[in-house]
Amino acid sequence: MSKEITPRNKDYAQWYNDLIIKGGLADYSAVRGCMVIKPHGFSLWEHMRDELDRQFKRTGHQNAYFPLFIPKSFLSREAEHVEGFAKECAVVTHYRLKSDPDSGELVVDEEAKLEEELIIRPTSETIIWDTYKTWIQSYRDLPVLVNQWANVVRWEMRTRLFLRTAEFLWQEGHTAHAKAEEAVAEARQMLEIYARFAEDFMALPVIKGVKSPAERFAGAVDTYCIEALMQDGKALQAGTSHFLGQNFAKAFEVQFLNKENQLEYVWATSWGVSTRLIGALVMAHSDDEGLVLPPKLAPLQVVIIPIYKGDDQKAALDEKAAEIATQLRDKGISVRYDDDDSSRPGWKFAEYEKKGIPVRIVIGARDLAQQQVEISRRDTREKTHVPLEGLAEQVVALLEDIQKQLFERAKAYRDTHITPAGNMDEFVRILDEKGGFVSAHWDGSVETEHKIKEMTKATIRCIPLDNPAEAGKCVLTGRPSSQRVLFARAY
Amino acid sequence: MSKEITPRNKDYAQWYNDLIIKGGLADYSAVRGCMVIKPHGFSLWEHMRDELDRQFKRTGHQNAYFPLFIPKSFLSREAEHVEGFAKECAVVTHYRLKSDPDSGELVVDEEAKLEEELIIRPTSETIIWDTYKTWIQSYRDLPVLVNQWANVVRWEMRTRLFLRTAEFLWQEGHTAHAKAEEAVAEARQMLEIYARFAEDFMALPVIKGVKSPAERFAGAVDTYCIEALMQDGKALQAGTSHFLGQNFAKAFEVQFLNKENQLEYVWATSWGVSTRLIGALVMAHSDDEGLVLPPKLAPLQVVIIPIYKGDDQKAALDEKAAEIATQLRDKGISVRYDDDDSSRPGWKFAEYEKKGIPVRIVIGARDLAQQQVEISRRDTREKTHVPLEGLAEQVVALLEDIQKQLFERAKAYRDTHITPAGNMDEFVRILDEKGGFVSAHWDGSVETEHKIKEMTKATIRCIPLDNPAEAGKCVLTGRPSSQRVLFARAY
Repeated sequence: MSKEITPRNKDYAQWYNDLIIKGGLADYSAVRGCMVIKPHGFSLWEHMRDELDRQFKRTGHQNAYFPLFIPKSFLSREAEHVEGFAKECAVVTHYRLKSDPDSGELVVDEEAKLEEELIIRPTSETIIWDTYKTWIQSYRDLPVLVNQWANVVRWEMRTRLFLRTAEFLWQEGHTAHAKAEEAVAEARQMLEIYARFAEDFMALPVIKGVKSPAERFAGAVDTYCIEALMQDGKALQAGTSHFLGQNFAKAFEVQFLNKENQLEYVWATSWGVSTRLIGALVMAHSDDEGLVLPPKLAPLQVVIIPIYKGDDQKAALDEKAAEIATQLRDKGISVRYDDDDSSRPGWKFAEYEKKGIPVRIVIGARDLAQQQVEISRRDTREKTHVPLEGLAEQVVALLEDIQKQLFERAKAYRDTHITPAGNMDEFVRILDEKGGFVSAHWDGSVETEHKIKEMTKATIRCIPLDNPAEAGKCVLTGRPSSQRVLFARAY
Repeated sequence: MSKEITPRNKDYAQWYNDLIIKGGLADYSAVRGCMVIKPHGFSLWEHMRDELDRQFKRTGHQNAYFPLFIPKSFLSREAEHVEGFAKECAVVTHYRLKSDPDSGELVVDEEAKLEEELIIRPTSETIIWDTYKTWIQSYRDLPVLVNQWANVVRWEMRTRLFLRTAEFLWQEGHTAHAKAEEAVAEARQMLEIYARFAEDFMALPVIKGVKSPAERFAGAVDTYCIEALMQDGKALQAGTSHFLGQNFAKAFEVQFLNKENQLEYVWATSWGVSTRLIGALVMAHSDDEGLVLPPKLAPLQVVIIPIYKGDDQKAALDEKAAEIATQLRDKGISVRYDDDDSSRPGWKFAEYEKKGIPVRIVIGARDLAQQQVEISRRDTREKTHVPLEGLAEQVVALLEDIQKQLFERAKAYRDTHITPAGNMDEFVRILDEKGGFVSAHWDGSVETEHKIKEMTKATIRCIPLDNPAEAGKCVLTGRPSSQRVLFARAY
């Protein structure tokens, strides 16, 4: 067990923080609630971003960039939207500093006060729909399929590395359509892309669903989401896609001439995932030794470490390692040969385990004589000896197997943690003793949802898209219900 | 001549704005001084970013991400740095809005006032060096070679699309070294990367040089730069690389234990290019018809437009166009077949010319019968008929030729616009009548530099790195000088 990392069963929250910090993903910063994403963490984000970006472009989307600042008055235009975001807005009020004539200290120059305050974007619907007004006149201008990779700021009171930070990185897609059905289809398509990305790349099984009204995005008609389960039995919302109806088109007066030459309001969607996904990835797969990263997203897939005495042995190992590295790179595998002689092999083993590198190859003088190497897989920490002959093919197969096993393990855990509850006693017992999703009947009212949250800290995570109809009675009120929904305590 | 674009010789500034807006690169936004980068413009930026990123990584740099916010007190730590940036800082003072109880309007919540104001980063030396303090303890932790792609804000009073905007996108490299020579070598290496990128990808000839003290980055010991010349004879600084000495290490107390176990301050560099490069690219190559983009960076390299009557002709052209597109894509060329029947070919020709697409292929029924197509190159607007046989190879060669010709043309213009001046009369006449760089002796004093700027609006753009020694007398004061420097009016 790593000495630097608090075990999960001792303090789960501390385990998570240790993983992030000691695993080299991020650091706290001098600014409250903001973090520094370190090279290892940022490389992970780049891999995620690049794959998502490919999928967005493949489905016809283009990237653009809109201002960081949103005029305060824009926020007020959509009533629910402002309600949802006003309490966590960073506000720019001045545009100049000066040296105080008395103290010599650097102070805000009161003469440089903005006429209208600017908000740092918490999300960009308002500034983007103000722009779309000039882009959209006719049905010929539709659809607009635009995405933006950007930083956003939401002034959260309680922050946690990656999961909830004042500033975070994300992508936000904002599309405009001539018909409601097209916008709904777009929102569902993007949810599908998120779900496939989570499962195929992050090895993270997710449940696709729709949010209850209380959990909807502020300004949306419907919010679709993917929900994942962490190792402590808490749920995590990993991505959302919103059908916005005509709400923002009406707030910003965006109309188009349809084929019949009549003016209509435009239909909208927005959808986003953020650096929060890194938190989900970390919590879903890691163990008490450190990070466990899925091979398809790991910044580095294979590390080769030599064990030797003297320069002669070293030279022979260098040569063989270079050969192996070339073979692996030819297969599209990222690999590093770490022959830094200022640290010992054992220290390196622990270091790369903490960082979650999927495969370690150890090569020593005796191995070389026997034409073999020792391979360890990070997920199970199993070691085997593998002949040099055909090594690259073995590593390819091993990386695929790790990717698959991570998903299977997470899915098995998730599948055994969806538990039906028939009454509130069961409901609470499941949450307290077992965790995970509680599948229960709900009468459809916001009051019931709030009441259950107050009593249990659990919220409705989603109404699964493939939910079977089932007549029943609300777990709290006993009123009639036509389907079960998934509750959980959540990040 | 395009009706939508003001000719250069009529109004150069308006020509530039028309190019940006009508060429689909960017739009003004509702926020003063901030712009919206449209998909065509953002795709251009992505191509530039991806190539630069490859070159940064090839030279051992890694990306990371630091907070958008900088505590006000950080800015004061380096005296010249604060002097340089205090007057253009966007300041966050509050973190919440509320509904005013009387008017019901959305107002800043005075109870949510920050204890210390936060500055939106105008550049990140301060927050990054505050972080490096925790990353660097020993010589083993050095060098740190980190880059960040980010948005920054400098509250400029006069803004121009891409060239000078309140918010802009850029990359900022921040490196830390054990020795001064290493840091200088790093700064020079990055200047070299910028220069090669400008010349090989942007087709933009640049002069590598070092800035005079008055034009140095606030906080730098030396600022290296690449300077380009625009078609109106004004210079444009296209990238800078700074040797920061130990200034930021001292301001943020970043010391390391050297191999002799002694504490030393760390040596630093920083270097950046921004979306301003898009402005340079646009002004260097475009004409009165619209944008002219170099093939290596163009979001789209080839457009194929069919000319036909009736569905039968259309079907035959569709088939042939698909074949051509596949052949071109196999050669790594980006291509779009625009068979949208809601606009006429002539309109499309003008549209793609405005957008600067390097090559247009027109295919009609008669061409098809003769097994040929018509090809137009955007730079010279020459048209030729080319046989279908071997077309892909021809297009590859044509794109290479366009890239080369753009550079040669810009270089010929630049080379004939470096004019020596022996006295101030000549100096002013060159600036007023010919434009470009004035090569003149300067006595090395800040006073002289300021005086010349006041008299002529020209500044010292740089002291070229390959400058020959030449004894002479300062063009203003007559005092002795050992080399000529380059003056120009600049963007």
